[in-house]
Amino acid sequence: MKMRRSERIVAVTKILTDQPYKLISLNYFTERFDAAKSTISEDLSIIKRVFSLEKMGKVETISGAAGGVRFIPDKGVKDIKDVINELSSYLSDPERILPGGYIYMTDLIFNPGLMDKIGEVFATKFSDLGAEYIITMETKGIPIAFMAARALNLPLVSIRKSSRVTEGSVVSINYVTGSSKKIETMSLSRRALPEGSKVIIIDDFMKAGGTAKGMLDLMAEFKAEVLDLGVLVETSTPQDKLVEDYTSLVVLDEVDQINQKIIVKPSDWVTNLE
Amino acid sequence: MKMRRSERIVAVTKILTDQPYKLISLNYFTERFDAAKSTISEDLSIIKRVFSLEKMGKVETISGAAGGVRFIPDKGVKDIKDVINELSSYLSDPERILPGGYIYMTDLIFNPGLMDKIGEVFATKFSDLGAEYIITMETKGIPIAFMAARALNLPLVSIRKSSRVTEGSVVSINYVTGSSKKIETMSLSRRALPEGSKVIIIDDFMKAGGTAKGMLDLMAEFKAEVLDLGVLVETSTPQDKLVEDYTSLVVLDEVDQINQKIIVKPSDWVTNLE
Repeated sequence: MKMRRSERIVAVTKILTDQPYKLISLNYFTERFDAAKSTISEDLSIIKRVFSLEKMGKVETISGAAGGVRFIPDKGVKDIKDVINELSSYLSDPERILPGGYIYMTDLIFNPGLMDKIGEVFATKFSDLGAEYIITMETKGIPIAFMAARALNLPLVSIRKSSRVTEGSVVSINYVTGSSKKIETMSLSRRALPEGSKVIIIDDFMKAGGTAKGMLDLMAEFKAEVLDLGVLVETSTPQDKLVEDYTSLVVLDEVDQINQKIIVKPSDWVTNLE
Repeated sequence: MKMRRSERIVAVTKILTDQPYKLISLNYFTERFDAAKSTISEDLSIIKRVFSLEKMGKVETISGAAGGVRFIPDKGVKDIKDVINELSSYLSDPERILPGGYIYMTDLIFNPGLMDKIGEVFATKFSDLGAEYIITMETKGIPIAFMAARALNLPLVSIRKSSRVTEGSVVSINYVTGSSKKIETMSLSRRALPEGSKVIIIDDFMKAGGTAKGMLDLMAEFKAEVLDLGVLVETSTPQDKLVEDYTSLVVLDEVDQINQKIIVKPSDWVTNLE
């Protein structure tokens, strides 16, 4: 159907942003909107300019026969800091204190609007690494990792906490949780991840890093190359974690059960963004 | 910043579609884009018209002091049928057959692009029910339910499969899985769901319905009103399920291990859409 520019550009914007990182050919647009290539190109450069001005992400054009255009949901520095401040302020609510100095964050992890934004923060950080899969561990890692996977247009692979996995040949490893020193098992079906894949691990919480270390060991069994490890919340103690390279978003500094106070601050990565 | 219509309408489209069901005041747009109310209203009616023509969802304007505009990601009938056909064709791949007549669908459940669309299908079906929460059960229900929750702008509540939940006061119930007749436990923290909430349950798979029945029983403990129960895949046998009212998307009719054949068909709800 023939449309005017102000109409067509609405539809083109919707199609692009609905499918982050998906390369869409110019032909798709020329055919769908019965418009010349030059017309669509002009639409795309308007969208590109507006997104850039309004810090709404990037529109990338790739030329050549296999080319096309794609939307990359890169967040600007101000947006990232706003999201992290919003998260920190939710987490600082003393009502969240649980016995044992833990904090209740299940409601935040299952809040789609918030996780949508957190997923885009991770996607912005990890956009240039060339990952093929996002890896997480059930249960609470899933929403965060899934939204990051959505923003990067990558499949998610979720490690099971049990060895009772009925999905064909399974690799299981034992690991020791860093804080409580318990021996646990994690498993992943062979068919879930091709050998030698490039992966990014994303999880919700890191204290001593025992679970993260377990995930790295499991990835080694799959000969996977782990490009980075993203963590929503890390605790400031113990300072020495069992893993070295990771990117957290916020640091849980103190949970004071007596005075009912939680201190949360942005991670160094967030603070140093300019 | 002052923009031309073809520029401003790109940004307005992005803002609306980024936040399904979120009511945004006209003032937000007039201030952000330094434009008159009548100008923004005209932008919105163009977006509304294009979305309606291209079956991209609805733009709803609510008048009055507490009013504003919101995007509702309703899918058209053709789009719903296309998504279900895509899902059925993936599921019919004989490579998916697992021992015991089960099928491997973990990769589909953790595919963000596909689940995005499935979530919108459920959101279209459940849009008018006035639900306050989406409920699911870990692990495989989470991505589907989370994307439906995202499309409906509702929080997700995820039931745990264990009774070892460290989130304050917890309600646990035993239930009998319909097919293997095993006794299992499911639990939910009291603080995860206010008493008397209106909820929709969404899960990945239903055979005899034992797990679904358990979730209904658990919801009764929270005095919740269950408005509907959405299921990605149901099996055609047993025909008599332990629950009566539910909406499935596809029916797994036969898994023939000897001839390596899987028969999957759209559910009656999908087939009868017009």
